[in-house]
Amino acid sequence: MKIFVAGATGRVGQILIKQLADKGHTVYAGARREEEIEKNEKIHPVHMNLHSTVAELTKLLSDVEVVYFVAGSRGNDLLQTDLNGAVKLMEAANQAGIARFIHLSALHSLVPEQWPESIPDYYVAKFFSDKWLIDQTDLDYTIVQPGSLEETVGSGKITTNVTGFSKNSIENVASVLAEVLDKTNTIKKLISMGDGDTPIEEAIKNIK
Amino acid sequence: MKIFVAGATGRVGQILIKQLADKGHTVYAGARREEEIEKNEKIHPVHMNLHSTVAELTKLLSDVEVVYFVAGSRGNDLLQTDLNGAVKLMEAANQAGIARFIHLSALHSLVPEQWPESIPDYYVAKFFSDKWLIDQTDLDYTIVQPGSLEETVGSGKITTNVTGFSKNSIENVASVLAEVLDKTNTIKKLISMGDGDTPIEEAIKNIK
Repeated sequence: MKIFVAGATGRVGQILIKQLADKGHTVYAGARREEEIEKNEKIHPVHMNLHSTVAELTKLLSDVEVVYFVAGSRGNDLLQTDLNGAVKLMEAANQAGIARFIHLSALHSLVPEQWPESIPDYYVAKFFSDKWLIDQTDLDYTIVQPGSLEETVGSGKITTNVTGFSKNSIENVASVLAEVLDKTNTIKKLISMGDGDTPIEEAIKNIK
Repeated sequence: MKIFVAGATGRVGQILIKQLADKGHTVYAGARREEEIEKNEKIHPVHMNLHSTVAELTKLLSDVEVVYFVAGSRGNDLLQTDLNGAVKLMEAANQAGIARFIHLSALHSLVPEQWPESIPDYYVAKFFSDKWLIDQTDLDYTIVQPGSLEETVGSGKITTNVTGFSKNSIENVASVLAEVLDKTNTIKKLISMGDGDTPIEEAIKNIK
């Protein structure tokens, strides 16, 4: 498939674009500093600025079947990147006639009572971008919601029933994002996740 | 009427609560630093923290018929105050069974092409709070949208047909907010405004 990944130089994005390419997909790797991306036959760096208009973002998606949003400003530009950047890319996908949109969000983003106290601004941004995707678009979304991200090697095993807090190997998060790509049982679903005991393929197959 | 004003110590709020009290209304003047508010028979300072939960905010509205949101963090806490604070107060009004909600927003907030380049973060916050009020609530809202706010004496005269930029005496903005209170023709309306030539009462009467 032809896939656009917004945030390809991020901690999750870097791994995700490699995994998608390894599976044989063509990846348009969108980033503000696209020169940092190692290009190859499958990975095509694309200059993307999330401060652009919807019309400008739409142009980046002309040859694309699936859009991932895994960008993040790490707290530095939450309103324009994490919130409005995501929403504008959703609108761009819609304008480009793309149905499938996979959004990297945060654990319990829609349940304010369960937000961690440490990063309230980030959670507000994720709450409103997730709500937009669910309520204001007709996209075939999947929203992936890990807890804290850890720079550890992926076990390939997760849980998708997270009631409290969760730790997540960044590689596991990327693997889940790659796995849901064409899994129709994950459409219109929010998937909470943490490192766990179930192989990712099986865990995603079990999403209802 | 019994009216809750969120942001009563702000530049607009300070004038608004006096105007409402002068018209004979009972004003619950909500602010984080409520001790700064001069209380009298009509003005009752209320401690309000927009970082509170919806349930906590709902308790502040138990004896209220109309809610104003005129709070603003002046860029310091946009996600939690200007955006999520406003949205939580909308939800609180709903929970308290209050129908009428009057929101101080910004000129052209729903038209990104017309946002001023100088304060993009503020406009993102206003865009998403206005969209929430319109699309995600059943409140009888009025959204008042001035351009830049100036600390000048109010002329009492405005325009409500603003295509480009507008300057607004803060006193005029407060007067418009007070004027729309019980004007049913302003329900479910966005009112763009700037200082102009039409007396406020007449300008508001003409809103269709």
